[in-house]
Amino acid sequence: PNGIPTFSSADKAFTFQPVGRMQLDYGWNMQDTKNPDNRSNKDITDGFNFRRAYIGFAGKMFNDWTYNATADFSGRTNASGRLQTAQLSYNGFKGWIIDVGAMQPAFTFEDSISSNDIGLVERPGINNVVTSLVASEGRLSAGVRTFGDNYFADVYLTGDTVNTSAQTTGDDQHAVFARAAYRPINDEHTIVHIGADIGYLYAPPQTNLVAGSVTPAQAHVVSLSERPENRYGGLGSILNTGNINVSDVTIYGGEAAVRYDSFWVQGEGYQVDLTRRFTPAATNDPSFFGYYAEAGWVLTGQKRNYVANQGAFSAPTVDKPFNPMTGNWGTWEAVARYSFLNLNSDTWATNTANRVRGGQQEVWTLGLNWYATPNVKMMLDYQFIDVKKYSSATNNTQVGDNWQSFGGRMQFTF
Amino acid sequence: PNGIPTFSSADKAFTFQPVGRMQLDYGWNMQDTKNPDNRSNKDITDGFNFRRAYIGFAGKMFNDWTYNATADFSGRTNASGRLQTAQLSYNGFKGWIIDVGAMQPAFTFEDSISSNDIGLVERPGINNVVTSLVASEGRLSAGVRTFGDNYFADVYLTGDTVNTSAQTTGDDQHAVFARAAYRPINDEHTIVHIGADIGYLYAPPQTNLVAGSVTPAQAHVVSLSERPENRYGGLGSILNTGNINVSDVTIYGGEAAVRYDSFWVQGEGYQVDLTRRFTPAATNDPSFFGYYAEAGWVLTGQKRNYVANQGAFSAPTVDKPFNPMTGNWGTWEAVARYSFLNLNSDTWATNTANRVRGGQQEVWTLGLNWYATPNVKMMLDYQFIDVKKYSSATNNTQVGDNWQSFGGRMQFTF
Amino acid sequence: PNGIPTFSSADKAFTFQPVGRMQLDYGWNMQDTKNPDNRSNKDITDGFNFRRAYIGFAGKMFNDWTYNATADFSGRTNASGRLQTAQLSYNGFKGWIIDVGAMQPAFTFEDSISSNDIGLVERPGINNVVTSLVASEGRLSAGVRTFGDNYFADVYLTGDTVNTSAQTTGDDQHAVFARAAYRPINDEHTIVHIGADIGYLYAPPQTNLVAGSVTPAQAHVVSLSERPENRYGGLGSILNTGNINVSDVTIYGGEAAVRYDSFWVQGEGYQVDLTRRFTPAATNDPSFFGYYAEAGWVLTGQKRNYVANQGAFSAPTVDKPFNPMTGNWGTWEAVARYSFLNLNSDTWATNTANRVRGGQQEVWTLGLNWYATPNVKMMLDYQFIDVKKYSSATNNTQVGDNWQSFGGRMQFTF
Repeated sequence: PNGIPTFSSADKAFTFQPVGRMQLDYGWNMQDTKNPDNRSNKDITDGFNFRRAYIGFAGKMFNDWTYNATADFSGRTNASGRLQTAQLSYNGFKGWIIDVGAMQPAFTFEDSISSNDIGLVERPGINNVVTSLVASEGRLSAGVRTFGDNYFADVYLTGDTVNTSAQTTGDDQHAVFARAAYRPINDEHTIVHIGADIGYLYAPPQTNLVAGSVTPAQAHVVSLSERPENRYGGLGSILNTGNINVSDVTIYGGEAAVRYDSFWVQGEGYQVDLTRRFTPAATNDPSFFGYYAEAGWVLTGQKRNYVANQGAFSAPTVDKPFNPMTGNWGTWEAVARYSFLNLNSDTWATNTANRVRGGQQEVWTLGLNWYATPNVKMMLDYQFIDVKKYSSATNNTQVGDNWQSFGGRMQFTF
Repeated sequence: PNGIPTFSSADKAFTFQPVGRMQLDYGWNMQDTKNPDNRSNKDITDGFNFRRAYIGFAGKMFNDWTYNATADFSGRTNASGRLQTAQLSYNGFKGWIIDVGAMQPAFTFEDSISSNDIGLVERPGINNVVTSLVASEGRLSAGVRTFGDNYFADVYLTGDTVNTSAQTTGDDQHAVFARAAYRPINDEHTIVHIGADIGYLYAPPQTNLVAGSVTPAQAHVVSLSERPENRYGGLGSILNTGNINVSDVTIYGGEAAVRYDSFWVQGEGYQVDLTRRFTPAATNDPSFFGYYAEAGWVLTGQKRNYVANQGAFSAPTVDKPFNPMTGNWGTWEAVARYSFLNLNSDTWATNTANRVRGGQQEVWTLGLNWYATPNVKMMLDYQFIDVKKYSSATNNTQVGDNWQSFGGRMQFTF
Repeated sequence: PNGIPTFSSADKAFTFQPVGRMQLDYGWNMQDTKNPDNRSNKDITDGFNFRRAYIGFAGKMFNDWTYNATADFSGRTNASGRLQTAQLSYNGFKGWIIDVGAMQPAFTFEDSISSNDIGLVERPGINNVVTSLVASEGRLSAGVRTFGDNYFADVYLTGDTVNTSAQTTGDDQHAVFARAAYRPINDEHTIVHIGADIGYLYAPPQTNLVAGSVTPAQAHVVSLSERPENRYGGLGSILNTGNINVSDVTIYGGEAAVRYDSFWVQGEGYQVDLTRRFTPAATNDPSFFGYYAEAGWVLTGQKRNYVANQGAFSAPTVDKPFNPMTGNWGTWEAVARYSFLNLNSDTWATNTANRVRGGQQEVWTLGLNWYATPNVKMMLDYQFIDVKKYSSATNNTQVGDNWQSFGGRMQFTF
């Protein structure tokens, strides 16, 4: 189906399919050259980036079990392949799925949309920030999903991810999250989706104490960071809170989405509350937040689909795969988004130990997507990016910048 | 078969199948907190570890040739994929198999059992020590196997492995080993297996001499080390002999196993003799040894199978795959093992240059295995671990420890 | 076909096949031990090397699109897998192929021959030098090929490769190349192929200026280097020009090949012209060149094939796969080559800043190839290697060496 080869045993108890997802980005971050200034990122790299390069297998065994074993070879150059997904699911109870392994469990609306199907090249900053704490891809997870004609809910116990640096001397982090969504309207023309998400990182990653180098104030740290919603040329994070020693982190927020025929809109907002630990000089617990609104129009008249067991949109239908001989031009879609992310907290507190100046960014993005076939997609994105960041907790010099970016993605999947 | 998708050409001359083996361990090494003491490993990491994560292909070509090309993405976090197996075999002569490539050639009984099918999460320490010298996974090998209704024999010439650090400036190691096994009883109820193994590392890995840094005493070194029979949280080796400059290493020992219906026992013991080279201060050649005894009972009444072309057990049959609707609960198995490993030699020699104090460990393990289907297996292991190790050749302070561990494995294969 | 499993949908609009290519080299570089001398590579490593270890997928989608997604796990030991190919091609216009992604675009005759099918274990030095600048494997490329019964032509815009170190702080390189070939004779017995290749690296990789460490003279560098046409034991480059700061690089040369039944010959020669940039002390622009002639004889009488959409030879037919029972012994081929490469320029210029003393090498190779089946190939190569290299631009001491090498390759593909 959809051009993806799938093999089934005669009795349908077993299926097998290869997994491939190749996303090649190329783009430019076009900064002006005015000088002197205080920008800490004056010449952001332009160029290519393999954003995702998945190779693996998925399938069904003995009717009720499904698996996915996938490696990721993404990166700019000379990147190493690593484990992306090793997920085992049990589907023996109708309407329920039990998941265990390393996976991308469904947390927030945008993160529940497959990266094949997202409307712009990157997800909104706030979604990346909150999923990086308790969910996101390659996350050790055990949990359960339930879904039906007009609802979706899940709850997971999660640990570390397989693709970030390990706590080699300490113990793994532990968190729990839940997501619930409801579709009050769900007919052929109109889908209205509302939902809520809550996450709780109750055991931050632990580093063993080492006399003279790891103190109690450094033993359970988290840091929040985010890129300016593109990764052209391997662009890294500019916003960054630095390490904060915490006893727990709470995340909460909501999601809403509407599809009306070939139009769709979606928006989400999340709050992140940290509880400090062993840092007596700081008397306040920092909080961060972000939100976005995104809208799309399928120019060629098709509709975005909705995936019940993920509780989120998928790509629009491609009913006329590209073939210039027969006058078929695939499916075209236009998308726009405004995204806001604030990683500052107590920016001007009198007690400077309370100040967290991770920075703040606004990104306006316009995108055009061409789905040549169900498994070949080309994306063009234009962005206006405004990053504001103070030099340090006690230095009020502005080191951010604003600039335009232009780039795109070549994607094929199988 | 067994839930593994296999594709055949119409004339059966060609087959093709994907290879997948995902083993996710999670466990705790529960040490007491008494202090002060002399333990060198006071807070062993708890947490997850992808013990194996294989993705690859296997198949048959032109009737007589079989191949296996598999990568491994295992590791704790951020681990890189690497080549695991690249094996070509010729089966054109009945009862004989010629192997060449990077593989896990059959040496010792336990190492000849697929890691899918072993009774506890880790193999006994002594098996890992002896196979790491001349066999083990990813080993460059060329050799031949022969087998029949009641015998198995093989002999291999082996080199380096593809997954340990290379001798970048010197030449590869060269070794030879042989294994022979016989089944005096081999009927429906009872299998009695006895065997012998011998290995000879005649050319240890060579490091080029470098004036001032690599001396003749450092040019051909081996070191023996071993973990405490679990790798939860990426646990590393505690026992370690350190580098010993040698001219050759000899390994010899025996294996015995019995299956009587749903009961099985197996045991092995090996001796490792090193011949020193260019180390005039040391007058004795060190020797190390270890052994284990392991027993299992398939609680649901099935039998462990025996693989003739490996000369070893495989997993018990799963004739009732898990399906709570029909009252099928899969296959359950209980396993117990005592394992001893001694990497000390001449511990109290008057000439301290002769002393090798790599340490000694005893591990008692109890395990419970659930084979939900032929390709979904869950394991729970409880261990009592006792490591004894002196601080150094001349310091008799005890730096070992004893503790309990608890953990398990989620495994799926295809 | 040829033992490669290929799966097709009923309407042939979709195909799928696994990709595997395992090449295990083992060899010795046999240097004499005369001492003292001035050789800078006195004890070149002997041993194994996984020259290529590809695992991936290829296929066809919606009739007109083909894809290839392949990872490479090659290396000596402990090497990481990395992306090798992520190529999407559109074949909707007859006789034309549009390519985009990371691939090995067809530049030079020898580099257009699949590494499965080359006559000796390594390609000639000059081909590696020129493709490494603008083409070679894993190269970001967008371009078009056209071909017919007696011609082939392509033109590509290329960027960085995915498997060399990135310009992490600067911008990607940009180049363009074209290749055109014609077959004046192209019948059952005889093929005569002539062609021309031109490449232009107009934007060398850029490193951002950093006060005090990266100056304008270091901002756009290329370096040319090459191994002595074997990689046994992970052998590295001896010839090396060092970094040269350039504004552009031009490559041009020609190719010729003839097949007459089971005999074949081929030869190529290329010139590489660099234009210096921001290096006022050097007044000359350096130039390098190389060429080779290679001939083969298929001893068992089959013919080498020709691949129209690559414009190059492929392996000889294997019409009698190895089967000693039926007296079939596969296809055998003998090959010989002389190869010359000069990476010196202005070696004796009065102005020593103009001197580039990268070295010069001549390699005579004799090879014997056994194609046991269409996908199992064994190679044996004997080489006489003569490397001449001056110690530095101002020190005329000879630090090269000459020696014989002997080695081979075990290859299987699927």
